[in-house]
Amino acid sequence: MTRKQIIQHIKKKKSYLCIGLDSDITKIPRHLLKYKNPILEFNKQIIDATHDLCVAYKPNIAFYELYGSKGWQTLEKTIAHIPSGIFKLADAKRGDIGNTSNMYAKAFLENMDFDAITVAPYMGEDSIKPFLEIKNKWVIVLGLTSNQGSKDFQFLKSNKKPIYQHVIEKCMQYGSPENMMFVIGATHEEVFRDIREFCPNHFFLVPGVGAQGGDLHKLSQFGCNNDVGLMVNATRSIIYASPEKDFAEKAREEALSLRKIMRLYI
Amino acid sequence: MTRKQIIQHIKKKKSYLCIGLDSDITKIPRHLLKYKNPILEFNKQIIDATHDLCVAYKPNIAFYELYGSKGWQTLEKTIAHIPSGIFKLADAKRGDIGNTSNMYAKAFLENMDFDAITVAPYMGEDSIKPFLEIKNKWVIVLGLTSNQGSKDFQFLKSNKKPIYQHVIEKCMQYGSPENMMFVIGATHEEVFRDIREFCPNHFFLVPGVGAQGGDLHKLSQFGCNNDVGLMVNATRSIIYASPEKDFAEKAREEALSLRKIMRLYI
Repeated sequence: MTRKQIIQHIKKKKSYLCIGLDSDITKIPRHLLKYKNPILEFNKQIIDATHDLCVAYKPNIAFYELYGSKGWQTLEKTIAHIPSGIFKLADAKRGDIGNTSNMYAKAFLENMDFDAITVAPYMGEDSIKPFLEIKNKWVIVLGLTSNQGSKDFQFLKSNKKPIYQHVIEKCMQYGSPENMMFVIGATHEEVFRDIREFCPNHFFLVPGVGAQGGDLHKLSQFGCNNDVGLMVNATRSIIYASPEKDFAEKAREEALSLRKIMRLYI
Repeated sequence: MTRKQIIQHIKKKKSYLCIGLDSDITKIPRHLLKYKNPILEFNKQIIDATHDLCVAYKPNIAFYELYGSKGWQTLEKTIAHIPSGIFKLADAKRGDIGNTSNMYAKAFLENMDFDAITVAPYMGEDSIKPFLEIKNKWVIVLGLTSNQGSKDFQFLKSNKKPIYQHVIEKCMQYGSPENMMFVIGATHEEVFRDIREFCPNHFFLVPGVGAQGGDLHKLSQFGCNNDVGLMVNATRSIIYASPEKDFAEKAREEALSLRKIMRLYI
């Protein structure tokens, strides 16, 4: 999917919502356990109920790897169920030496037809570039993450700049706003404005709204650029909005309430 | 596997060799393509020919994910083929927020029965701790990697210390020498001595010998501690030692020649 197409979808749907599919057998409604593949059924019903309100789905690969080869089958079938025109994002946080990153790139962006994959930057250039070689696909580099542990290393300063800024600025030399995004956690609204100063054009994938407590208004005010420039992810607040039979309906309500705010910024 | 057991195996086998199983369909001998699962057959023959010479096998997960659910089946069957008493190391370089790292920990250290998993440190504390909660299992944190891109961020200095030192010192607060190792690339022999000064007791997993050019003598001189304290990995130089029918025999010869050097340091 090209940047132009992403922006078109955002404007058409009046939404820059990404829905995380971190589907956990211990958290999905009990009545689904009668299905042969409860997680797949859960994902399908969530997708059916929300696909007109979001521009992206983001399965978290850990939740599928947990079940080994069977989990991968669930992942493959989930991807196949996502309607065309929706950005399919593998939240995998991979990153390895060049020849290995090349394998991960093929696995997710070619063989599984994801549009994008999240990548961890610690290993630098050759861990990132192989993902950029596949046309119309995206690498989404961890810049500033939403979790508590982000404070351990990402805020360390080197030459008066935090490490996350070094990461973003260096990676901007490798990828362009047409094939690279950055993860910027919603829990750090206070630095969104600073980051937009040195990274004005790239899209940001923003996790941390909802269960993690990020404020959609603030991050939209400080994070949007002329092309919107944001995909804001919510997971638990949407997919686990209800533990009952009405889970898909309640998920839709949650997505609608986020979109209501997003309309203000498009 | 406990630290004590690892050291016993190293002393008994006179080897601290780890063999990487980055098995690539385009690189394995042609005659194996007639098998139903050529990569599994390749792995089995490599394991059968080398298991008395090494203390660990390290499948690189990317090479299995490339084939989706089928690749995971190959990985599961490969693990099942490794004899007991050998350290099974998932080179996965995972790392995510706490609840997700917890899933990866279960996937690799419980469901698949790996002894250890490599983890990327960028996301800090909660991306690492969940892996430490499983008894007699290991987390192997990326400290200083062997690749070219390691120069991008790992050598940046903050408070006069390189980032890799911040990572290692901080992670030493989370894990002990009984459940945490660090990846230190063989291509940085010049800093092995420095790293041993602030991290004397932990085991190091050392990639980069062989195809990547690291010097086994130097890194053993500077990297060994009283408990040996090293697992040195070689992959391509061993598993692709020959593209012919004698590949397993030649792999054994390569492993033998590395062990010959290792005997000097045990």
